[in-house]
This record gives sequence, C-alpha cells and structure tokens, in this order.
Amino acid sequence: MSTHDILHRLSETLATRKHADPEKSYTAKLFSEGPDSILKKIGEECAELIMAGKDGKRLNIVRESTDVIYHILVLLAFFDMTIEDVSQEMRRREGISGIDEKAARGQK
Amino acid sequence: MSTHDILHRLSETLATRKHADPEKSYTAKLFSEGPDSILKKIGEECAELIMAGKDGKRLNIVRESTDVIYHILVLLAFFDMTIEDVSQEMRRREGISGIDEKAARGQK
Amino acid sequence: MSTHDILHRLSETLATRKHADPEKSYTAKLFSEGPDSILKKIGEECAELIMAGKDGKRLNIVRESTDVIYHILVLLAFFDMTIEDVSQEMRRREGISGIDEKAARGQK
Amino acid sequence: MSTHDILHRLSETLATRKHADPEKSYTAKLFSEGPDSILKKIGEECAELIMAGKDGKRLNIVRESTDVIYHILVLLAFFDMTIEDVSQEMRRREGISGIDEKAARGQK
Repeated sequence: MSTHDILHRLSETLATRKHADPEKSYTAKLFSEGPDSILKKIGEECAELIMAGKDGKRLNIVRESTDVIYHILVLLAFFDMTIEDVSQEMRRREGISGIDEKAARGQK
Repeated sequence: MSTHDILHRLSETLATRKHADPEKSYTAKLFSEGPDSILKKIGEECAELIMAGKDGKRLNIVRESTDVIYHILVLLAFFDMTIEDVSQEMRRREGISGIDEKAARGQK
Repeated sequence: MSTHDILHRLSETLATRKHADPEKSYTAKLFSEGPDSILKKIGEECAELIMAGKDGKRLNIVRESTDVIYHILVLLAFFDMTIEDVSQEMRRREGISGIDEKAARGQK
Repeated sequence: MSTHDILHRLSETLATRKHADPEKSYTAKLFSEGPDSILKKIGEECAELIMAGKDGKRLNIVRESTDVIYHILVLLAFFDMTIEDVSQEMRRREGISGIDEKAARGQK
C-alpha cells in the first residue's frame, strides 16, 4: 500500500461510521449532531491552523492541517462524498492556474 | 496511476514553485508574499467552505473543500512539507479515537 | 457627544446606505452583493484579527478588531438591526457568567 | 445612562478581571490561558456567526454577533485596550470610504 493511501481509505471508512453509536466514537457523535457541528469544528480547527502557521512550528502545522483535513473528510462523508471528489476537482483544475480557475468561475 | 495520487503529486510539485516568478502564477505570488498571505487565504476559503456547507450543495462543498486543501498544501510547501506529513500523522492517530487523541494531547 | 457614540451612530447610518449606488461606496457594494459577501468579509477579517493577535502589535489588533466589528455592523444593518441589539443582548447577559450563559442556552 | 454604554462599561470592567480567580469566572479563565485561547474563541464564535448569518435568524445573528464582540473586548483587555480604541479608529476612518481606507493602507 502506498504511503498516502490513508486519506483515501479513511475517507471511505468514515461513511460507515455515519450510523454508529454516538457514545462510542468522536466522529459518530459529530455525524449525529449534524452538519452545523461539523462546520463549527472546521472553523475551530482552521483558526488553530492559522495560529500554528503564525507560530511556524512544523509539528503543530502538520497536526492542525490534519485536524482541518480530517473534519473536511467528515463533512464530505456527511454529504455522501469522499476525498476522491476533491482529487477529481484537483485533476480538473490541473494545468489551469489558480488565477484563471477563479476567473473561469467568475470569482474575484 | 491511482485516482488519489494527484494530492500527493501536486503537493510535491508545489515545492518547485516556491521560487517561480510571482507574475506568472497565483501560487508563486502567494509564496512570494509569505505565510501571512497563505494563512489569510486559508481563513477566507474556510469561511467559504462553512457557507457552502450551510447551503448543502455538493458541488460547492467539493470546490470549497478543494480550495481549503489546496491552500493547506501551499502552507505545507512553504514550510518544506507535503501532504505525506499529514498522511503520516493520520496513520499515527489510526486506531485512536478522536476523543482519546485529543485527550492524549491534553486538549479539551 | 460621548466618545463611544460613533459605534451607535455609524450602525444607524449604515441602514441608510442599503440602497445607495454600489459604484459609489464599498459598503453599498457589500449590501448589493448580499449576505454571503458580508459573511465572507467577516471570515476574512476574523482570520486577520487572529493573525494580528498572534503578532501582538496593538495598533494592528485595533485595526483588525475595527474591521471585524465594522462588518458585523454591516451584517446587522442588512438584517435591519443595529449595535443597539447587541448592547441589549449584553445587558441581558450581565450578571450571568459566560459559563452559566452558555449552559442556559444548552450549549457546550 | 445611554443604552449603548454597556459596551464601553463592560470593556473597562474586563481589565479588572485579568487577575481574578480562573475558577470563578469564564472570562478570568480565558485571561489565565492567554491570547491563544482568546483568539481560538474568536475563531469559533466567528464561524458560528457565519453560520447564523446563513440561517438568517435575527435572534441568532444578534447572539453570535454579541459572542464575537465580547471576545474581541476580552482580547483588547488582554492587550490593555478597550472598545474606546476601536471607536477612535472608527472616527479616524470616518469620511473615508472603506475602499479608500484599504487603499491607504496598501491592502487589496
């Protein structure tokens, strides 16, 4: 198994926890609380990532990046999606610069 | 090539853009502006992901998730890391519930 | 005029800009774009406040605090409210500790 | 006393809680934990405000606006400032459009 398979595998596993006992797992509890709780956690972890980035300590940056990405995987699972949907979107954008991509979507 | 390889490959490619001409690429511009600009973008994209999550439109959730994760890849590259560091952290946590993991770090 | 009247006065003035020409004022443009643009700005300015807080430079903390509060005033105006509604909520909470207040709302 | 005095008065009161017993008050606990805890709370409450804004329920928007502003008052107090510093900054900007003000600071 390649070293980065875990993101893919974890993302697929999360779907199976959607109906698990909320008492037994942090993630099952998040699912049972619904999208607002998941989005609130994404906001919290994002704030912590920004703070870690300001501190510039690599170990913390990795941990907080992992926290944000983990909760994005939970959000995707809540909406019956996986990291594969993100990978597909990245492939779609490949070869398009970020600026052009934004322009293509009509965003500033 | 496996379907999710793009995250890994893109993450490695980003390092090579760190010293590219800021006029030529959105990402090179971000690198040249430094970590504050990258972190600001992470905050912006995170706010947009929260809004997309509230709207519940799957296409937008994927796009905004991609935006957040892309800028995390840029942040990791700025600090000479890749998504592989996040994968390793996820593997380290595997089998540990989120609650236990947080407890182990002494966080609330 | 007391020194803090400006928050109150500005908040009331914002309502009058809701139908102004979007070409003529930053705030009129925000109003014309709708709540998503206002919320996105709140998210951006909040990220910048967190970064300013990490830097610990008082002048920047004041500027970014002002930016966040200004955009909250715009949001309130969009929903036909003013800072007076926030003041009333603060008076309602007075004498209640933050912990008790959160408990009373059934939040964690 | 005018109706909006509470922001001013509360902001001044917060300074006196900086060395209170962390066991006795939510705010004293925040102060004792330091700026990272305050900034993390600002990030959390900001995420909740964005979510309330998406829901469009006025009562919730007021509550979450109050939460964000309250924690900004705590941040200001931590750095020995009050809402008066924000009021002064707003007076300084008065008559300058937001766009011009941003331009004057060299921001995009």
